[in-house]
Amino acid sequence: MLKNDLLLKALRKEKVSRPPVWMMRQAGRYLPEYQVLKAKYDFFTRVQTPELACEITLQPIDSMGVDAAIIFSDILVIPQVMGMTVLMEEGKGPLLPNTIKSAKDVDKLEVTTAAENLKYVYDALSLTKRELNNRVPLIGFAGAPFTLLCYMVEGKGSKGFDKAKSFCFTQPDLSASLLQKITDVTIQYLIRQIKAGADVVQIFDSWSGLLSPDDFDRFALPYLLQIAESVSPHAPVILFPKGSNYALSSLSQNKSVSGIGIDWTIRPSVAREQTQHRVTLQGNFDPSKLLLPPSEIRKEVHHMISEFGVNGYIANLGHGIMPHIPVDHAKAFVDAVKEYQE
Amino acid sequence: MLKNDLLLKALRKEKVSRPPVWMMRQAGRYLPEYQVLKAKYDFFTRVQTPELACEITLQPIDSMGVDAAIIFSDILVIPQVMGMTVLMEEGKGPLLPNTIKSAKDVDKLEVTTAAENLKYVYDALSLTKRELNNRVPLIGFAGAPFTLLCYMVEGKGSKGFDKAKSFCFTQPDLSASLLQKITDVTIQYLIRQIKAGADVVQIFDSWSGLLSPDDFDRFALPYLLQIAESVSPHAPVILFPKGSNYALSSLSQNKSVSGIGIDWTIRPSVAREQTQHRVTLQGNFDPSKLLLPPSEIRKEVHHMISEFGVNGYIANLGHGIMPHIPVDHAKAFVDAVKEYQE
Repeated sequence: MLKNDLLLKALRKEKVSRPPVWMMRQAGRYLPEYQVLKAKYDFFTRVQTPELACEITLQPIDSMGVDAAIIFSDILVIPQVMGMTVLMEEGKGPLLPNTIKSAKDVDKLEVTTAAENLKYVYDALSLTKRELNNRVPLIGFAGAPFTLLCYMVEGKGSKGFDKAKSFCFTQPDLSASLLQKITDVTIQYLIRQIKAGADVVQIFDSWSGLLSPDDFDRFALPYLLQIAESVSPHAPVILFPKGSNYALSSLSQNKSVSGIGIDWTIRPSVAREQTQHRVTLQGNFDPSKLLLPPSEIRKEVHHMISEFGVNGYIANLGHGIMPHIPVDHAKAFVDAVKEYQE
Repeated sequence: MLKNDLLLKALRKEKVSRPPVWMMRQAGRYLPEYQVLKAKYDFFTRVQTPELACEITLQPIDSMGVDAAIIFSDILVIPQVMGMTVLMEEGKGPLLPNTIKSAKDVDKLEVTTAAENLKYVYDALSLTKRELNNRVPLIGFAGAPFTLLCYMVEGKGSKGFDKAKSFCFTQPDLSASLLQKITDVTIQYLIRQIKAGADVVQIFDSWSGLLSPDDFDRFALPYLLQIAESVSPHAPVILFPKGSNYALSSLSQNKSVSGIGIDWTIRPSVAREQTQHRVTLQGNFDPSKLLLPPSEIRKEVHHMISEFGVNGYIANLGHGIMPHIPVDHAKAFVDAVKEYQE
């Protein structure tokens, strides 16, 4: 049915002629056509208007030629429908003015009806799925429970999320109940995304790398696995616990995990050694390297693929593409993957 | 001569009854007696006045009972004496308004006479050494070349130092020449620190963990090793390449490295496995855990020591202590190490 099903083949670890490629934040600020919409509509208007979210999602399919679309949205829509105020200041990042501090704050969070209030995401997915017309698979996503807790407790972006981590350490039972509530909503949310048209889902644990291995096992891992186990019967699941390289081996042993995203702080050969082709690996180009001349980007990309191998691999960046990357450099990254020959 | 030489013994991997303990940023904002001086004198006055730097250095020796003093100073004094303007805005971090952009900027940097212009650091060390009266060893320090390049190119603190990294990637020859200049000054600087009274030196590579293993080998490792090899004949060298866990094995194989600092993102047992008691390990308590009740801090500290083992180990945090940590919690950390029994 899909004309280009490289991503799904890679996630099933089937033999492919070359790896699929997409870029985190590929529907974003480095694209001039995105800037046009950004100038006209504020952030949550772009996220909450299915026609706009769809248009933005499709932009890199047309201009970059990537092998997958990822729905334009934000991980903080979950705290929002659980009852928290989330503000997005352009260029400044998110702000949650009323942070979670006590059991009362956790009690107040909405769980049962939260996911159904994200109809605009499901509508955006259905519309995008239709507009894609089976050209490439569509990826849905959510933030991981620990990463969402970080924002819900800290209230904004942070280098070390010390406040959020201290909350976990000093109130482990309350943290567990908060993480479980987020998990419950996220499972419903992702299953609904899949029903609306997502072919694959990715869970972004952007801040799990701030945890020690033991604390990852307490505050991140159980919730990631609950989600993967509940969602994987419906579609393949990719986990991206950024920086948690220590967790690769154990995560790869869970059959509900199809893919694991990694950043550039681990050698492909080491990641392979730890995961033994039990899962598909995704990554791990350092986005700062997209400022290299296109000819050197090509060389580095080919080197990366040769280290990962063609099968069981999804070429991607190790983190989101940055706003100041020239479009032709991003295109050089994608093209380099597409022209790769063993 | 030293009444308490636990730190030196640990760095020589000699048998000890318990590990030595100190805390990164132990002379800092969590101490009320430091706040008194901070209210009276601005940052660079505190750094550049030997009597003040000495007083601040001694504060945690008296109030915390740590097993080592570390001179109160800043890694950015090196860019300063190399000719760059460095401003420190309280609560906002450093600002270098004229960043390094081109070969001309690198050419202008002073190398030959830079280190001798840090007389106030050497005076602070001599004075502190005298005032310590051999109670505990005195640690000198410097920023690692890659970390200093980060600030010199980026101009301020940053989550990912993408500008600095892109500078390295796109201008590798110019970066090499900048890194070499910083290295040359740093070697002179550390040898002079030792002559002035430092018993041990630590090199802080706070941002090396933002590099991939291959890029660490290009932009961080060679300069760290040059420094270690030139300085280690004069005093033991501790390297702290924060987050570069991938480098532990290779760094530990260099005989000029006595100690390696690690943060909490690696299990003690894994760090031991990779370094095989070739070096002393230092760390790796998550500073966010200092908000736990003192009784739980004690439990966690004892667990940490039992994982590292008593010998070839220096108990420390995995990053600097934060300003909002209660003094009695910091004291609980130190006391827990001192009361540890196998």
